[in-house]
Amino acid sequence: MQITSLVTGGAGFIGSHVARHLLALRHQVIILDDLSGGFTSNVPQGAIFIEGSITDTTLINEIFAQHHIDYIYHLAAYAAEGLSHFIRKFNYENNLIGSINLINAAVNNNIKKFIFTSSIAVYGTQELPLKELQKPQPEDPYGIAKYAIEMDLDNAHKMFGLDYIIFRPHNVYGPGQNIGDKYRNVVGIFMNQISKGEPLTIFGDGNQTRAFTYIDDVAPYIAASYAFAKADNQIFNIGADTENTVNDLAKEVGVAMEREVTINHLEQREEVVHAYADHSKFTEIFSPKPATTLAQGLQETAKWVTQHGARESGTFDPIEITKNLPKSWQ
Amino acid sequence: MQITSLVTGGAGFIGSHVARHLLALRHQVIILDDLSGGFTSNVPQGAIFIEGSITDTTLINEIFAQHHIDYIYHLAAYAAEGLSHFIRKFNYENNLIGSINLINAAVNNNIKKFIFTSSIAVYGTQELPLKELQKPQPEDPYGIAKYAIEMDLDNAHKMFGLDYIIFRPHNVYGPGQNIGDKYRNVVGIFMNQISKGEPLTIFGDGNQTRAFTYIDDVAPYIAASYAFAKADNQIFNIGADTENTVNDLAKEVGVAMEREVTINHLEQREEVVHAYADHSKFTEIFSPKPATTLAQGLQETAKWVTQHGARESGTFDPIEITKNLPKSWQ
Repeated sequence: MQITSLVTGGAGFIGSHVARHLLALRHQVIILDDLSGGFTSNVPQGAIFIEGSITDTTLINEIFAQHHIDYIYHLAAYAAEGLSHFIRKFNYENNLIGSINLINAAVNNNIKKFIFTSSIAVYGTQELPLKELQKPQPEDPYGIAKYAIEMDLDNAHKMFGLDYIIFRPHNVYGPGQNIGDKYRNVVGIFMNQISKGEPLTIFGDGNQTRAFTYIDDVAPYIAASYAFAKADNQIFNIGADTENTVNDLAKEVGVAMEREVTINHLEQREEVVHAYADHSKFTEIFSPKPATTLAQGLQETAKWVTQHGARESGTFDPIEITKNLPKSWQ
Repeated sequence: MQITSLVTGGAGFIGSHVARHLLALRHQVIILDDLSGGFTSNVPQGAIFIEGSITDTTLINEIFAQHHIDYIYHLAAYAAEGLSHFIRKFNYENNLIGSINLINAAVNNNIKKFIFTSSIAVYGTQELPLKELQKPQPEDPYGIAKYAIEMDLDNAHKMFGLDYIIFRPHNVYGPGQNIGDKYRNVVGIFMNQISKGEPLTIFGDGNQTRAFTYIDDVAPYIAASYAFAKADNQIFNIGADTENTVNDLAKEVGVAMEREVTINHLEQREEVVHAYADHSKFTEIFSPKPATTLAQGLQETAKWVTQHGARESGTFDPIEITKNLPKSWQ
């Protein structure tokens, strides 16, 4: 019998790639996405698309009543880490309560496995490289919500036998990414700014480092993970090993887009300065292919952005707290 | 000028005692309580009572617009730890989202201090005695929600300068407690069962231990804490030092109620077996009076229960997950 997988956020960036890989693995794929950050154009052919929110309990129950779902790939989230300070309630309702709806449904419908994309944001500032055995100490509401979901999943495993796999990706970029959201994903923001002939905006001195991760080094493994019994009830960092400063990234994006770039340094904001992760646990279980280089990945992304053009970013509404909101977000 | 304090859950057990002590300290006291577990008869004379929920954002904003609030004492919660596995969504909406509404309001209205009653439930199973420096690893959704609120408060402090004090009480009992809730508070459950001439129900063998804490050893210190600058942005275990088994408690409750008791051992449920906490941090800052003995405390409580009579417990509705729900809760 064909395996059926529900992919939440499957019209979004990482979710649509995971859905595509699941289709290639011959799963029946049901996508649930409220299109708040996703696009129907991202939905891969062959998937069943349902427009709606993970916070809609009635809808979730209907989906599970109508389909025999084997696996849940839960990728829906509003992943604007820096903005989450200012939209705390929205963050917890959308990211945490939505996830709890899915965990309830998973337990009540005896789902085989719940595959969840958490985030490196759960760690906060810690000794580097970040390892899965370190106790999380998230520094923003987004990371707190992700960590709470991780703990709830582990509790649902112990209490109800729900199996899970948790991935903590970081700084993923690539074709299909929402470049029209000014609050998140620096690669997308830079490419959109270049497309519009604007200077690149960097918070602070630009010496903060991240390990930017190409989508093809993440999505195929998340999709295939359901078949890796050794991954059951485990947490995995996933992503690139090579760190770059945001200044370096700006240069590389200019090269990929074949444009001269100018940089506009904005006031420093509250964020983790350095973050890179140890991926040896992931490597041991999943034996991934060699990683895409930043230059290659940016070239693929630039090609896609050039085809699709710039996007206008809306302003998030309502902002719940305006105190200390970065000026460029006001 | 008179100090104004908002006490959420102020018609509930601990909240109403805190409100009474604040009135004695000459605060103007505004109580917000949805009466889901509280009673108007608990509201102390002199307090302004507003019936409503902390999840009602509009109401919260109205209260802060109408009153100049100096301190928030946030005690509203549905503290049914064991039941929280089965009402996960309700737990996070009521306990976490409600708290976030208050944190948003605290930041937006420049509240002087946010005093929050968390719970010993954040610790989970750890080396005993439990100390504030141990990293929480909660084992049920109730504890996860409390821990998430603690982390969010600490983040709001770092991001917006909101000062807080967090108390982690445990196993508090005394006059005013809701004895009509079959899902929580073993002292109240026992006294209600005795009042109704029923056997006392114990999950498992009854050798699980807790340090039962009399209300007068907790509420006055929570109330007065606003004036202890050394307590700012600190976490405190608060409660009794003496552990007792649940079997011992059953005997002592029988003595206090002056009745022979019979015990009905139910199937063991998922819960932490032993929990007691180190209170040296609290003692150093607050120099509390000697603690009430269990016999004294139970006698006071029994007197109150005898005056007020038994209460019928409703059944929580809706239960979200019925799998593995203890039989006595079905």
